[in-house]
Amino acid sequence: MPAESLGGREVAARLRALAAESVASSAAAGITAHFAIVVATREESAAWYVRTLSAAAARLNIECEVLALRPDATAAEIMAVLRAQSADTAVHGIVVQAPVPAGLALAELASAIEPVKDVDGASPISLGRLMAGLPTFAPATAQAVLELLDYHGVELDGRRAVVVGRSLVVGKPVAQLLLARNATVTVCHSHTADLASITRSADVLVVAVGRPRFITAEHVRPGAVVVDVGTNTSANGSLVGDVDDASVASVAGGLSPVPGGVGPATTARLLLNPATAAAGGPDLG
Amino acid sequence: MPAESLGGREVAARLRALAAESVASSAAAGITAHFAIVVATREESAAWYVRTLSAAAARLNIECEVLALRPDATAAEIMAVLRAQSADTAVHGIVVQAPVPAGLALAELASAIEPVKDVDGASPISLGRLMAGLPTFAPATAQAVLELLDYHGVELDGRRAVVVGRSLVVGKPVAQLLLARNATVTVCHSHTADLASITRSADVLVVAVGRPRFITAEHVRPGAVVVDVGTNTSANGSLVGDVDDASVASVAGGLSPVPGGVGPATTARLLLNPATAAAGGPDLG
Repeated sequence: MPAESLGGREVAARLRALAAESVASSAAAGITAHFAIVVATREESAAWYVRTLSAAAARLNIECEVLALRPDATAAEIMAVLRAQSADTAVHGIVVQAPVPAGLALAELASAIEPVKDVDGASPISLGRLMAGLPTFAPATAQAVLELLDYHGVELDGRRAVVVGRSLVVGKPVAQLLLARNATVTVCHSHTADLASITRSADVLVVAVGRPRFITAEHVRPGAVVVDVGTNTSANGSLVGDVDDASVASVAGGLSPVPGGVGPATTARLLLNPATAAAGGPDLG
Repeated sequence: MPAESLGGREVAARLRALAAESVASSAAAGITAHFAIVVATREESAAWYVRTLSAAAARLNIECEVLALRPDATAAEIMAVLRAQSADTAVHGIVVQAPVPAGLALAELASAIEPVKDVDGASPISLGRLMAGLPTFAPATAQAVLELLDYHGVELDGRRAVVVGRSLVVGKPVAQLLLARNATVTVCHSHTADLASITRSADVLVVAVGRPRFITAEHVRPGAVVVDVGTNTSANGSLVGDVDDASVASVAGGLSPVPGGVGPATTARLLLNPATAAAGGPDLG
């Protein structure tokens, strides 16, 4: 029996409906939800993502402003822009698009974003509040993984979750979110010995390593749920996940597709955050 | 062959020597290292720890001021004290002693501590910077676990580490520190199913659950290194760890004793931090 497809488009539709509600309630109060994306890269994949996000924002009547800096912008230059946007009361959400210029740390830059506007949960305060279990915005991709699992009714409490990858935008925050939901969580990475023996212990396997078709059937316990966060571009230009879907689908109980899984859920989740922020936002203490 | 004892007193002596160097270099510059402990509890174990810390500070010529608030102090009252201490240039380190009044969150309170003075790594910014791999103070107990492992030459890169307990002062930060050292890290807790099968996969097992003699020989792989963070008080008033040392010592390759393990290393580590802060501190960006 092939794995159930854990689609993200239906999750995205639900998140967009919530965003539309927030946008409408803001509009009724005379407030237009406004979202700023700071870009300091000329990578085509980043430009593609920013276009996708802008178009999705427009469809939701969220104003989206792209602030383009040179790819060799300094930390001081980027942080000055983030501080100005933070100080602007018309702005409800601020995101720094990855990758950032060489030698700079995204979290360090994002410390210039006011926490209530840090809608991609990138700043140290947001990450620390996530770790502490305090109300905060978590990184949108990590949130999208949880939205996907919840939408498809995947039980987490007391289950074994294995996260492959330890980036600050996916692996580490998704581990915190899974832990907060009472999963027993293991984080694997490039130094992990005998990866397959560990991933096979997972009831829920989240893969975010940026290596095409890296996880194969031998890494997956029969019946496990696999979430593929990878968005690699193949030679012919199509999108390929970190999971070898052909082999894994025959073993797993559930598998999120690429494209159509975590990706659309992430975009929708990221836009829900500034919509929520414009409508009053979460209580960040 | 019984487990090697991974003693903390020798680790503490080395950390105190480093602290004494920093204190001396500050003194030469006319600066007296000064450490403030904010206490809003009447629990005897907290009072005992504060006395221990004060005495250890005095021996290092670190000024230690205990600011005692009522056990029903409000968040606003505690945070006002923390802000005043943060603004006082004569103060180099500030700690909020646990437990905090019922209903309050330590991390939320600690957000009122300026990051350069947050020597027990309790604020969301400090925790987020730890998660992001940026320079910061980490919680002293978590740091002490790593000091102990390093002092006794325990390899971490590529090894499997299992942390039992997910508190914000030990379990979660120690998991981040182990991950930063390239261990494959699993966090277990009260909802974990079949705990023993997971802890038996550990090369390095860190236990911080606050339950006397909770971890027994059946939880430990032969030859594994076990760090016992527990400090429980037994019926006769003696200190008892979270590890059943009598049975575990016959299986483990190394075991930190209680008392004399993580405890003294933590006190020394906590005092090294304000000494370092007085001497200029780490570069916190």
